[in-house]
Amino acid sequence: MYQTMREDCDKIVRAAIQKVKPDEAVKRALSGKEFAGKVILVAIGKAGWQMAKAAVDVLGSRIDDGIVITKYDHVLAPIPGIECCEAGHPVPDENSFEATGKAMKLVDDLKPEDTVLFLVSGGGSALFEKPLIPGEELQDITSQMLACGANIVEMNTIRKRLSSVKGGRFAQLAAPAHVEAVILSDIVGDPLDMIASGPACPDSASRADALAIIQKYGLKLSDQAMALMDIETPKSLDNVTTQITGSVRELCSAAAEVCVELGYEPVLLSDQLGCVAREAGSFMGSILRTHYDSGKNLAFIAGGETIVNITGKGLGGRNQELAFAAADLIDGLEGTAVFSVGSDGTDGPTDAAGGYVDGSTAGELRELGLKVFDVLQDNDSYHALQKTGGLIMTGPTGTNVNDVAVALLKAK
Amino acid sequence: MYQTMREDCDKIVRAAIQKVKPDEAVKRALSGKEFAGKVILVAIGKAGWQMAKAAVDVLGSRIDDGIVITKYDHVLAPIPGIECCEAGHPVPDENSFEATGKAMKLVDDLKPEDTVLFLVSGGGSALFEKPLIPGEELQDITSQMLACGANIVEMNTIRKRLSSVKGGRFAQLAAPAHVEAVILSDIVGDPLDMIASGPACPDSASRADALAIIQKYGLKLSDQAMALMDIETPKSLDNVTTQITGSVRELCSAAAEVCVELGYEPVLLSDQLGCVAREAGSFMGSILRTHYDSGKNLAFIAGGETIVNITGKGLGGRNQELAFAAADLIDGLEGTAVFSVGSDGTDGPTDAAGGYVDGSTAGELRELGLKVFDVLQDNDSYHALQKTGGLIMTGPTGTNVNDVAVALLKAK
Repeated sequence: MYQTMREDCDKIVRAAIQKVKPDEAVKRALSGKEFAGKVILVAIGKAGWQMAKAAVDVLGSRIDDGIVITKYDHVLAPIPGIECCEAGHPVPDENSFEATGKAMKLVDDLKPEDTVLFLVSGGGSALFEKPLIPGEELQDITSQMLACGANIVEMNTIRKRLSSVKGGRFAQLAAPAHVEAVILSDIVGDPLDMIASGPACPDSASRADALAIIQKYGLKLSDQAMALMDIETPKSLDNVTTQITGSVRELCSAAAEVCVELGYEPVLLSDQLGCVAREAGSFMGSILRTHYDSGKNLAFIAGGETIVNITGKGLGGRNQELAFAAADLIDGLEGTAVFSVGSDGTDGPTDAAGGYVDGSTAGELRELGLKVFDVLQDNDSYHALQKTGGLIMTGPTGTNVNDVAVALLKAK
Repeated sequence: MYQTMREDCDKIVRAAIQKVKPDEAVKRALSGKEFAGKVILVAIGKAGWQMAKAAVDVLGSRIDDGIVITKYDHVLAPIPGIECCEAGHPVPDENSFEATGKAMKLVDDLKPEDTVLFLVSGGGSALFEKPLIPGEELQDITSQMLACGANIVEMNTIRKRLSSVKGGRFAQLAAPAHVEAVILSDIVGDPLDMIASGPACPDSASRADALAIIQKYGLKLSDQAMALMDIETPKSLDNVTTQITGSVRELCSAAAEVCVELGYEPVLLSDQLGCVAREAGSFMGSILRTHYDSGKNLAFIAGGETIVNITGKGLGGRNQELAFAAADLIDGLEGTAVFSVGSDGTDGPTDAAGGYVDGSTAGELRELGLKVFDVLQDNDSYHALQKTGGLIMTGPTGTNVNDVAVALLKAK
């Protein structure tokens, strides 16, 4: 292993993840903000507790009332003045509905000068829900759509109309107060209407769209549910400001900043990577081969969420596969490295956050009698990287804004 | 289709291929060269006739004698003063051996001031061969190695020792004359010892390597062939100058030049791409999404040779699959396009050279009732691109230096 390359890798990984942690991200988003009337905090999602805690740390007693709705076992301690609720995820339960009802009550009698500080993180779709039909029927309609192969856009179109808070209805409820939404994005490309099913985002789908989906799949809805299709969701919201923070874009730009500090010229390739992990690794390895003689220190950065095709029975994750697949491409090229890491600190069903290879890795694998192709066919990158010292361990980070991969080149 | 994007695509494709055509490439390589003594031309490979013709056009009567060894039906007309031979490809035949013998005779009695102008193109391994054992045994050993799964490096290690001209032996034969090699590279990364099995390139493999391979696979060699393993191939050659021309690197830089003329800022990603075609397309599409709001005109360029996994029964090629796979990623993004083209003018078993998609393609496909994923699963990019006007047709170009893919972004 090239010790200095590995050290650079660890510095980049540590600093990039630090920057997108919920508390850092919320503090950045709230710094310098001033509020006129009452301030009500509503924090939903898997990072709800961390986001609320950070907001209270910044704003203190300026917050008049508030609620956290997060996953079971995700409330780490009481937060003064804030009610902390735990509920079902990924399937909403009665606690989701009850806590969401409390949040609705907190915001339904505000004045124009008041502010709802709405902190949103992944998992919000299940945790923040109060259906307008019985929970059992909602579950039944969801199952029908899954069974007939409806896509996620179609599912959301129907479900938003069956919900008190999705599809912009929460923001509508909070009006005339201003909704200051701070969103920790965990979906590549930051589609605001998808994150937590968009409680503070206008719904672009119409009644006609909903009816077409019901007809297309022959969905069976009660009269009550059918009647709800006729009630239009908000098509615009003039009381909402949205800040996306701690997204994969910030993860990439934080990585780029550290690269600059370490003397690399950063090149952002993508923050929306979605292809097969091992092919992305091959692509990035071929980029390093191409620029190997350029005499420059370069850092090619690609964020997103790749996919893994399971062909074997080994242990690994998409980040480990991406990095590992680059090993052959940079074989023997001194001063090159490729690494990839999941910002949540866990990659696949492993205790590693990601993987690291450099120009020496392929040679080490040969001495171990391992072939990159065979390891990938067996999806066993974890054990191979363990042997070459290529596992990246961070422990759970408390955030999840996808992955970042970096191809580093240090001039000879 | 965005007409101006498509026009830019066609300009880039046309100019890039023009630059790597054998005649252009040879003329560029020979311009300004001066020779002292005799000049003997030896042109081998599928583009042998074109390369020889170009050299004669430039040097005229300065060439004293010469020979072309190319594939059947590839001699387009006589060349004054040059013997044009046709021979077997991909399997060498008696005509290969005979013509190679003539070439050896042309260079075996030269003086230090003389020059062998050695023009090499793809297919040279089969066309330029004179085995030191009977042709039947060479064929038998090759079959044995194929059957036991020997890799190309192992196969070449054995075959170079069984050949009069491979593994640097042709250049050794031409000494003390100088060998001026002009190589039209058709292998990604330009490995000189692989192109035409390296007649003018030192062989890095040793006798011990050869014997290890024979033992590893239990190859059966005659006593005569075994004896040849003991004769060392040249480990260095001080009478050779090599110019690589018309390679995929030049294809990429030619594409970059046209991009600059058209107002795009070119970014060379790779000239050694080797991953799965559709994943490369997805990667390049995600790059365009990421930079869509940058306000810049950008051209991301990736050359190489991707691979296709056959999962269906449709018609297509690696370039068409690469471009087609980007369609969903750039769906609706005005001023974006991804295209990929094979420099030989044929992509897979089709009459197209490659494929083109832009931000409007996915919408057109929806209207046709086609899904990108389904088309790719059926490997049927040709018919889908035919319907969206996305086929790139150039006709045969007379060269083969891999492929180039470009992701274009025109600022709004």
